[in-house]
Amino acid sequence: MKLLNVDTLDEAREKLLSAASGKSPAAEKVSLKESFGRILARDVRSEDNIPGFRKSTVDGYAVRAADTQGAGDSIPVFLKVVETVAMGEAPEKKIEPGQAAYVPTGGMLPEGADAMVMIEYCEKFDENSIAVYDSVSPGRNMVAAGEDVSAGQVIMEKGTRITAREAGVLASSGVHMPEVFAPWKVSIISTGDELVAADVKPEPGQVRDINTYSLLAATAGKGFETVSTAVIKDEENLLEKAVEEAFKTSDVVLVSGGSSQGDKDHTARVIDRLSHGGVFTHGIALKPGKPTILGYDGESQTILAGLPGHPAAALMVFELLIGWLHRKLTGQKEPLSVPAVITENVPAAGGRTTCQMVKLEKEPGGTYSARPLHGKSALMTTLTRADGYTMIGVNREGINEGDTVEVILF
Amino acid sequence: MKLLNVDTLDEAREKLLSAASGKSPAAEKVSLKESFGRILARDVRSEDNIPGFRKSTVDGYAVRAADTQGAGDSIPVFLKVVETVAMGEAPEKKIEPGQAAYVPTGGMLPEGADAMVMIEYCEKFDENSIAVYDSVSPGRNMVAAGEDVSAGQVIMEKGTRITAREAGVLASSGVHMPEVFAPWKVSIISTGDELVAADVKPEPGQVRDINTYSLLAATAGKGFETVSTAVIKDEENLLEKAVEEAFKTSDVVLVSGGSSQGDKDHTARVIDRLSHGGVFTHGIALKPGKPTILGYDGESQTILAGLPGHPAAALMVFELLIGWLHRKLTGQKEPLSVPAVITENVPAAGGRTTCQMVKLEKEPGGTYSARPLHGKSALMTTLTRADGYTMIGVNREGINEGDTVEVILF
Repeated sequence: MKLLNVDTLDEAREKLLSAASGKSPAAEKVSLKESFGRILARDVRSEDNIPGFRKSTVDGYAVRAADTQGAGDSIPVFLKVVETVAMGEAPEKKIEPGQAAYVPTGGMLPEGADAMVMIEYCEKFDENSIAVYDSVSPGRNMVAAGEDVSAGQVIMEKGTRITAREAGVLASSGVHMPEVFAPWKVSIISTGDELVAADVKPEPGQVRDINTYSLLAATAGKGFETVSTAVIKDEENLLEKAVEEAFKTSDVVLVSGGSSQGDKDHTARVIDRLSHGGVFTHGIALKPGKPTILGYDGESQTILAGLPGHPAAALMVFELLIGWLHRKLTGQKEPLSVPAVITENVPAAGGRTTCQMVKLEKEPGGTYSARPLHGKSALMTTLTRADGYTMIGVNREGINEGDTVEVILF
Repeated sequence: MKLLNVDTLDEAREKLLSAASGKSPAAEKVSLKESFGRILARDVRSEDNIPGFRKSTVDGYAVRAADTQGAGDSIPVFLKVVETVAMGEAPEKKIEPGQAAYVPTGGMLPEGADAMVMIEYCEKFDENSIAVYDSVSPGRNMVAAGEDVSAGQVIMEKGTRITAREAGVLASSGVHMPEVFAPWKVSIISTGDELVAADVKPEPGQVRDINTYSLLAATAGKGFETVSTAVIKDEENLLEKAVEEAFKTSDVVLVSGGSSQGDKDHTARVIDRLSHGGVFTHGIALKPGKPTILGYDGESQTILAGLPGHPAAALMVFELLIGWLHRKLTGQKEPLSVPAVITENVPAAGGRTTCQMVKLEKEPGGTYSARPLHGKSALMTTLTRADGYTMIGVNREGINEGDTVEVILF
């Protein structure tokens, strides 16, 4: 078998990161409502203390804690109520010894007070005073100014994805226009004489185009923006035109199909020509995913990837290389992995890193078992039944039934 | 302390599901490109066999396997090449004994052939024939018609979220207009005299509105559509107007704030009035999340939830009740949980289910430890540092350092 000089997965990643190291996505300020799902482009510091004032966590009376010493179930202390503090307003009076002020949950403590007594432990005594049946220590039932976040503190790091929790904290800190990475613009080109659209009934020998849809969904899932898709016959001049066109508008051009070692392999030639000799990886020692071409055009700062034609392999290479690179350049965390006990032996592919799809099952003790999903490389459904995959290193002979493996979740 | 007759989390869920059992979201057909992230509203069956024909998985020659018996490294068999099959086309000739046809990877096998020999094991012998140095068994290097999916087979179940992998399988099966659940329409109302917008500098006593943003992001994350938001003063007539307005356009109305037992509790009254007496839960034995009101208006089929004012509690109740209900009604799987060893004792809140936020750390053996994140209930940042939470049942006294707990991931 003709073996090209393929890279290991790590070599390919190293070359890709080194070539595209200047390719960090641009940053842009967007409104908080538009920022959901986006990635922070820089550390965010709080403008203010949060809370900005000493805040009650209960409905009750703001007091000087010292005044309540000795109070209990049957021994009240009596305090004069000098004010009722309204929500959203600053108190007008200072609490002197022997005084108290009503403050609702979330309301602001008056100066002089240093604790709250819950209303359940207070009783109206007369028009202007209360009996307090609880002794509190300073700081009780309240939050200090800046206790949640102090002004200037980094509240969120670059690379954080903005979900509901982050949106809330950004809002509370007054960050109403967070700076996020602009989405990468991606073009998807599927090549193959056998391809028909998803809404066409294939003739014998034809198959429906899968990669356009699965890569569209995959790029959307990463927050990328797909600027163009094209399905073309497997001819070098058509491919060259399509890639040239995609270059103009894209940060990343994905070409799927046509990068096998068959007699129609022009993807490498086209990518190399258009990237001014920028192809650095001709095949990766990866199963699935061997026929992968990677290149970078420094002039236009465009990443070019020739993905395998097989849909499962194309998705896996997209995730392991393009998704990985984006995480590196934007400072995102790697996807979560969970330990699981493999239920049967899995041989490694000699000399290649193997991505073994697995289905997770919860075991009685709460741990997971991972059942390897087998199937010839043409089987797409294997992928939808999988919950994740485990990587078997290039130098390992395989994994044995009962081994604990790391399953990276889809 | 005045204790209302609160529900356990399970009781509240049971009542909610029972009240809203007819509230399954409507289904709609959308194009495959619009379907990403959506939930399938019914099981999907494949129209066709996949692949639709016997497909080669290699570049090579289609043969009758029996013809290659005895062939090996130094002992070729000779076959007559009768055709070169092009990608996307049906072969024209049938393979008779002693014959072969060239078929590229993904190409269709001719009738008569029952295996593929890789091109690496073949040598051109003369103009019309090849020498084959490999003996193959039937079915070798090919995929049978329907081997991936057979026509009529359920390829994806109701409740499946369409990600890249599902999009690919739907495309391959010709499902170009999948039937998905229409998004729930949600209105978000935040109440509080102390609230100012995220782009306003709060005066003493004021705080920025958090819940509008965190709930907007949370509903977006679930694929719901927010049709309106409103921030209003904590007055019963304003709330009534806002909820009445929201009713007209919403499947779900979320009111945050105002459902504590303080002196401004009109949320329950307003919800009960507008839902024609439909409030069934006045408080949940849940920490955080106690001051929660749940109601359902059967006439307009509207779910009404009075969420706690505290942002972390509001998000948690949204997830545990509204998110849970949506998963139940649409057939989605529950979120993944991972086992982790807790690093310190966590006392339970007496008589309440406790949601303890935790931060996961990877231990050397690949397992996770879970560090409980403490903080007064007013601290929002606790939530952003958390990777998930673990539930401590209402009847448990707490969890002990070293216990293995299930962490539900955010």
